[in-house]
Amino acid sequence: MPNGAQRVVSGLFEAGVRVCFANPGTSELHLVAALDDVPGMRRVLCLFEGVATGAADGYGRMAGEPGCTLLHLGPGLAGGLPNLHNARRAGTPIVNVIGDHALRHKRLDAPLESDIGALAGTVSAWTRRAFDAAVLADDAAEAVAAAAGPPRAVATLIVPADVAWADAGDAVGAPGMPRGVAARGLVSEVEVAGVAAALRSGAPAALLLGGAATHGPGLRAAARVAAATGARLLCETFPARLERGAGLPPVERLGYRAADAAALLSGVRHLVLAGASVPVPFFAYPGQDDAVVPGGCEVRALGGGGGGDVVAGLSAVADVVGGRGPVSAPPAQEAVRPVVPDGALTGESAAAVLGALLPEGAVVVDEANTSGIWLPGATAGAPPHDWLTLTGGALGQGLPLAVGAAVACPGRPVVALVADGAAMYTPQALWTLAREGLDVTVVVFSNRAYAILELEQMMLGGAGVGAAGRELFDLDRPALDFVALARGMGVDAGRAATVAEFSALIGRGLREPGPFLVECVVPAIGRPARGGPAGTDS
Amino acid sequence: MPNGAQRVVSGLFEAGVRVCFANPGTSELHLVAALDDVPGMRRVLCLFEGVATGAADGYGRMAGEPGCTLLHLGPGLAGGLPNLHNARRAGTPIVNVIGDHALRHKRLDAPLESDIGALAGTVSAWTRRAFDAAVLADDAAEAVAAAAGPPRAVATLIVPADVAWADAGDAVGAPGMPRGVAARGLVSEVEVAGVAAALRSGAPAALLLGGAATHGPGLRAAARVAAATGARLLCETFPARLERGAGLPPVERLGYRAADAAALLSGVRHLVLAGASVPVPFFAYPGQDDAVVPGGCEVRALGGGGGGDVVAGLSAVADVVGGRGPVSAPPAQEAVRPVVPDGALTGESAAAVLGALLPEGAVVVDEANTSGIWLPGATAGAPPHDWLTLTGGALGQGLPLAVGAAVACPGRPVVALVADGAAMYTPQALWTLAREGLDVTVVVFSNRAYAILELEQMMLGGAGVGAAGRELFDLDRPALDFVALARGMGVDAGRAATVAEFSALIGRGLREPGPFLVECVVPAIGRPARGGPAGTDS
Repeated sequence: MPNGAQRVVSGLFEAGVRVCFANPGTSELHLVAALDDVPGMRRVLCLFEGVATGAADGYGRMAGEPGCTLLHLGPGLAGGLPNLHNARRAGTPIVNVIGDHALRHKRLDAPLESDIGALAGTVSAWTRRAFDAAVLADDAAEAVAAAAGPPRAVATLIVPADVAWADAGDAVGAPGMPRGVAARGLVSEVEVAGVAAALRSGAPAALLLGGAATHGPGLRAAARVAAATGARLLCETFPARLERGAGLPPVERLGYRAADAAALLSGVRHLVLAGASVPVPFFAYPGQDDAVVPGGCEVRALGGGGGGDVVAGLSAVADVVGGRGPVSAPPAQEAVRPVVPDGALTGESAAAVLGALLPEGAVVVDEANTSGIWLPGATAGAPPHDWLTLTGGALGQGLPLAVGAAVACPGRPVVALVADGAAMYTPQALWTLAREGLDVTVVVFSNRAYAILELEQMMLGGAGVGAAGRELFDLDRPALDFVALARGMGVDAGRAATVAEFSALIGRGLREPGPFLVECVVPAIGRPARGGPAGTDS
Repeated sequence: MPNGAQRVVSGLFEAGVRVCFANPGTSELHLVAALDDVPGMRRVLCLFEGVATGAADGYGRMAGEPGCTLLHLGPGLAGGLPNLHNARRAGTPIVNVIGDHALRHKRLDAPLESDIGALAGTVSAWTRRAFDAAVLADDAAEAVAAAAGPPRAVATLIVPADVAWADAGDAVGAPGMPRGVAARGLVSEVEVAGVAAALRSGAPAALLLGGAATHGPGLRAAARVAAATGARLLCETFPARLERGAGLPPVERLGYRAADAAALLSGVRHLVLAGASVPVPFFAYPGQDDAVVPGGCEVRALGGGGGGDVVAGLSAVADVVGGRGPVSAPPAQEAVRPVVPDGALTGESAAAVLGALLPEGAVVVDEANTSGIWLPGATAGAPPHDWLTLTGGALGQGLPLAVGAAVACPGRPVVALVADGAAMYTPQALWTLAREGLDVTVVVFSNRAYAILELEQMMLGGAGVGAAGRELFDLDRPALDFVALARGMGVDAGRAATVAEFSALIGRGLREPGPFLVECVVPAIGRPARGGPAGTDS
């Protein structure tokens, strides 16, 4: 007779979950055992919860359906929260399975007891604590449905240990809630007509794309609209997954700095949100305006609220406006690669190398932060690829995201571009890359600073951080040796201090199967290159 | 004119806070700047929030007064929650300062927006969101008072960016709430008399020590009680800080396994809780009794509720029972060191080496888990030292705790004994050890397994984890090279695969200033030694 844990796992599997990113403990052992019974469920061990949740985010973004995590009580969930925050902002479907103390044990306030529901609530659209083993497969199926959406979201199922180990009876298991049963909401004809009218008004207009609208079908529909109406194609500052490259419709990403984003939107009279939210500044700054959208601009959402089928909506708008507006082919990005420069290794020249070498079908994870500002430009005309960004601002996303993207996309090269400061939040992901033999080329931009804080302090008009305080921006005492760190976790690695070295190591990483890390020695923004023979400066 | 951030920092400093464990971001930049103005406030940069909070725990346990953390919005606090959970269980005084978005920015639901209050509430006895720069010094002083207790606790002050950067006016700052103004509650005479009567009843009795009762004065008072009454001296399974070693009263720690703890308490008719909670099992197991305290045992708390002065209470009891009970000197641990064995390197022989070499005044951080079960026995008769344990069960505590303990205790050697699995939750702490030049000898017990899960699965009566599921217990594919990891973060290190190598490396670590890491290659419990020449097996 199955127990509750077996019902959870079979319920997840029947609902379509195929991978579990796990950092389990005692409360989850029956769930671990239940995973044994389902050969089709891939188990990926992570040495820290933030790796498991970030991997589930990367998996969900690329697979389009939820993976699950398996985490240990409240502290385990807590460790995973920063990357679940990013996943929530990305609209990624994830099912967290959290083992809890046995129900009879809760009142004892044992050392690991804490308020799991409060923690889960900060990131989850759906949270349930299970009480009855007999219906655990249903609970699991409902969790998957809640995660799959629409809208896609984080769902958390809390499974007490005694519910997991209890007999679940003979019931025929989950009803096998059909996958995708919840249809996306239709975008109404009124909404479509309103958007079409706005775009054809002759006033400057733009489409701001996000969510599913930044994937191929959405992009192509949006490009038809743009071709017919002259509307500009923009996308969110930090898209969860942007398909881009040669042949795809090019979209301009809103700048991170509010002033840059506002400049891009300047003069726009009609802004159509297609899967995106109203753009706002990342942070407030003293004496600065919070507005990104210009005054007098009319904002309309297509498939608002996250539940509408924004791709169908864009297609419907394209059908309405097609043939009536300016006659032109939908825009397509020209195939163009940067010339690899001769100069010193900098963020800019490293970006050129990556633009020159990025393979077709690559999945690029971008947490390069200040060192990465040249990357979008340098890779714009590379062969088609996906670009995944730091949606929620919680650092430590890049390496875990690469784990999950690679699990979701066997056969596709994954390139993780990560700032050194960001990499150090979740370096344990490197071990999982090695363990799973994932084909990921990691670039760590080693500028030995939290350079973003220097920039932010400038944007704040000078927060008054002096020399002593600046020590908190500075990562060069001692220098981090990412080659040693990678090798310590079973990932081969090399250090590049010149453009030639960087090109050679990137080539090697892309050519060889499995993970490879390149430490890319660059100056912090506004500082001179630190180049020199590899290895002399660390 | 000072701004709000300067008021926060001056308020903290005037209330006695002398160190800030920081992982700041944009929302905290004015707080970073304010730290510049207070030369007496030590700033310790941590590369991950869990290091900052664990370090604050180690600092608070040893300093006896709160250090502060500086963390970035909700995701930053979230990353620090697992070690704040441990700190909460340890009763450690900590003030978290969390920068939040500007108040005017909150409604925009910017990418980093989340429910900071919900997160803080899971670990904090006191949480406040500041709104008024003029009273921020008072807010800070109240946070320190809430953390300092009694009872000692985690306090969280949320400072919106625009409150931090606002003019705070000319007010003369904080009232400088005097440190320690809140007196510990007195233990009533009735309570003392009741405890004394129970202990003199002639029935088997035991004192269960926790909190302040496991420090020198509490131990000595408890030992007087034991000498006079014949009561046994026990302490919690996971004490926050236990003073022990030659000349100090020896106490028996309750076993981790409920059956062991119950056996130790078997026959006890009067159990007096002195700073400890009623002992409960860590986890529930199917078909097993949750009781640790035997039926018919009367349990009394001395200074119940955490606010009473348990040391004064023990002294009062000792005064009442002194001279009336069995005539004997208070028990004192004999000075005795293990002989360093010849055999293979195992958890047991490694413990003997540590027992032989542990220096006087050492602060020992113990997150060795299954590899560490021989440590308490082997070090019992070493010169006096402090022993800090994993109070809340959230892994990743050991290395950060060592950071904070070393900051609190310059001049005392710190020895961090950490299991490999546990070390990988917060390895970034090594970098801070190197940056601050802290005199910490780290031992990583490399058994390449989550061996605790094997034990737990046995204790569950077999959860049914098969060969496939056991891969989630297994850390040897690939092997972690802690020497490389340490060097990658600026900490020199060596690997020991024999007892002789281990002795030599421990000696070196203790002799040399600054941090040093020893990878101690041991078999997982119940498996044969993996010994061999160092370096051949990784």
